[in-house]
Amino acid sequence: MPTISRKGELMPQSPIRKLVPYAEQAVKDGKSIYYLNIGQPDIKTPEVALKAVRENTVEILSYSKSEGSEVYREKIAAYYEKHDIHVSETDIVVTTGASEALLFVFGSIMDPDDEVIICEPFYANYIAFSVASGVNVVPIVSKIEDNFALPSIEAFEKLITPKTKAILICNPGNPTGYLYSKEEIQKLTAIVKKHDLFLIADEVYREFIYDGNEHYSIMHEEGLDEHAIMIDSVSKRYSMCGARVGCLVSKNKSVIKTVIKFAQARLSPPTYAQIASEAALDTPQSYFDDVIAEYIERRDTLIAELQKIEGIKVTKPKGAFYCVVELPIKNSDHFAQWLLEHFDVNGETVMVAPAGGFYSTPGLGLNQIRIAYVLNKESLIKAVNIIKEALKVYKD
Amino acid sequence: MPTISRKGELMPQSPIRKLVPYAEQAVKDGKSIYYLNIGQPDIKTPEVALKAVRENTVEILSYSKSEGSEVYREKIAAYYEKHDIHVSETDIVVTTGASEALLFVFGSIMDPDDEVIICEPFYANYIAFSVASGVNVVPIVSKIEDNFALPSIEAFEKLITPKTKAILICNPGNPTGYLYSKEEIQKLTAIVKKHDLFLIADEVYREFIYDGNEHYSIMHEEGLDEHAIMIDSVSKRYSMCGARVGCLVSKNKSVIKTVIKFAQARLSPPTYAQIASEAALDTPQSYFDDVIAEYIERRDTLIAELQKIEGIKVTKPKGAFYCVVELPIKNSDHFAQWLLEHFDVNGETVMVAPAGGFYSTPGLGLNQIRIAYVLNKESLIKAVNIIKEALKVYKD
Ligand SMILES: Cc1ncc(COP(=O)(O)O)c(C=O)c1O
Ligand SMILES: Cc1ncc(COP(=O)(O)O)c(C=O)c1O
Repeated sequence: MPTISRKGELMPQSPIRKLVPYAEQAVKDGKSIYYLNIGQPDIKTPEVALKAVRENTVEILSYSKSEGSEVYREKIAAYYEKHDIHVSETDIVVTTGASEALLFVFGSIMDPDDEVIICEPFYANYIAFSVASGVNVVPIVSKIEDNFALPSIEAFEKLITPKTKAILICNPGNPTGYLYSKEEIQKLTAIVKKHDLFLIADEVYREFIYDGNEHYSIMHEEGLDEHAIMIDSVSKRYSMCGARVGCLVSKNKSVIKTVIKFAQARLSPPTYAQIASEAALDTPQSYFDDVIAEYIERRDTLIAELQKIEGIKVTKPKGAFYCVVELPIKNSDHFAQWLLEHFDVNGETVMVAPAGGFYSTPGLGLNQIRIAYVLNKESLIKAVNIIKEALKVYKD
Repeated sequence: MPTISRKGELMPQSPIRKLVPYAEQAVKDGKSIYYLNIGQPDIKTPEVALKAVRENTVEILSYSKSEGSEVYREKIAAYYEKHDIHVSETDIVVTTGASEALLFVFGSIMDPDDEVIICEPFYANYIAFSVASGVNVVPIVSKIEDNFALPSIEAFEKLITPKTKAILICNPGNPTGYLYSKEEIQKLTAIVKKHDLFLIADEVYREFIYDGNEHYSIMHEEGLDEHAIMIDSVSKRYSMCGARVGCLVSKNKSVIKTVIKFAQARLSPPTYAQIASEAALDTPQSYFDDVIAEYIERRDTLIAELQKIEGIKVTKPKGAFYCVVELPIKNSDHFAQWLLEHFDVNGETVMVAPAGGFYSTPGLGLNQIRIAYVLNKESLIKAVNIIKEALKVYKD
């Protein structure tokens, strides 16, 4: 029998997916579950986007341009302009989600065995994309005690080798909710310029910023044009995860030219999704104001409830809609599975993401979970109460 | 300035794309162009699919299952059942076009430097996917003189090395229009079993079969379960290229399990496109009958017109909607560009695909072009006449 690739064997299965069978069984057993495990918001997609698709007049559903339709890219550039980022449509490649943008970037700037430094905990699929591309993730630890702030320049420099091609940050962060300050971005700028690296910023949560903070994008940094590659997506911004539209933005012409070659190979991003995404750019500001207000309320509720539990550690996220929680347990993989299999409060239980999958240093994050506050306030209160009760009886 | 990857440099730009600027200029110069260069049909998408999207009731456009919605996969299995292919929904992974299916397969069964044998001329993007995956395409020549029939078993065996992981065929073929017979598939079966290889069949044109021939799928072969991987797509079948939905079918459980890991990393295939694709499975048979009749008429017209030109060689395709034409010229890259830049008949010219890009053996196909008969009969007659007149005056 012919065998699969080593790459295929190394390809991680996300810790959340491993829990799915237990969740399905729990549902079969009559339990109802609060899903705090995934970043699938319960927020309604803007009507203007839904309507554009319902009223589309496509008769021949043809390939679009590989780099995305010109009109759509022009509109994206106008969107960034409003956020004080000055790019033109030729600096933008539309992709099938931020996921594909990340794959294209990895392929365009790294060869097998090249290295990308990423602050952990990080979005778990970065590992998957690196395995798919044959490159290595070099983790640099950011700590819950420091609120997951950027590690020191010295810590970065210790990890830089001739194989290092890029530093990748997620800003604001999944799973940390951490928002990098202007000073931190400037530190990174200094490092990538000194060592001639790319700086990739995954800014898919760029609009989810709380408490009057401002998002400082790598695209705001002057003199970083040849180094900066921004990744973006409509998935979370407009609660349009199923569209599968993202983009990649860079002023580095060689990067764009190379990414377009990858884009041409797969022909085009999805047409209906581009119709929805283009229309979504006309979403009224009130929609975002409401959504942000909602997330702040959820976050505040979640943190307040969590802080009532003894022995846990949690920091208040400044952006995105996740937080990492340290629990008085040894193995959160086991805890998460146990919650589904063996625990409930009045027939209700919780599904959380064990944080081990967000680290690539073995052994880190095993006493942590990630909570996505994508449910309404009442559900969050009940869900945290379940965790609280669970911790009273749970034994590792 | 940080540099792009070697992979990025090696990534081919399709020969068609190189012509696009010349085409754009020709249009600016007031010429009108018959586009015979790409496989974008002018056929209307089935109303049942368009309607399903217009009438969709999605309110939160969420991620679907990574392997595609269960209902859709069940319906795909039922579609194959009608074609005498017995698979269940667990043998199917829905992808973002056949393009992504090919990438997932390459990643799942091959590691860097592994080899896949492909009969050339072949679909140009196979090279791009192999570069992206870091694997090597080993071409085996099929000749226009032999109608592009399968090379001999001996010819294959000469190329098999310890690095060979798979043979990839396209059936019916782009760019050849060749349809492999049952006997040829059985020859391939014998080879892959003897040498323990995978047999990948790109069957995206499986319904475009003419002259009463039958399509013999690798999935029809008994005892090939662990070896066979079929690639499919809605792009051409329903003239839904812009949907970006394809799939991958295999009874090899390790392959499916591994492909799903790749699928999970990119989260999900596009939701609207899955709505359209699921509905498209209810397209009435009359739609296909009309489309096939149309393509046969186009093909017959095209071949008849081409055969009137002196010094050209062309074989009548049995499937798909392409044919390879050998011209009395030396360099079809140059000829194709010249047609756009320097030639017209009453303000009209033609865009064709130089065939060099469909070969990976250097020097092959330079006197060939690929014509896609995706235009109506009248346009095809005019387009071939332009080529005929052009050849009278063209000098390499
Ligand atoms: C940090 C981060 N980057 C990228 C993605 C992928 O997003 P997309 O749906 O645009 O592929 C996600 C999705 O959760 C994410 O959290
Ligand atoms: C032989 C072949 N395979 C795969 C593809 C890619 O198709 P899709 O649109 O499904 O990605 C094409 C597109 O032209 C093709 O001709």
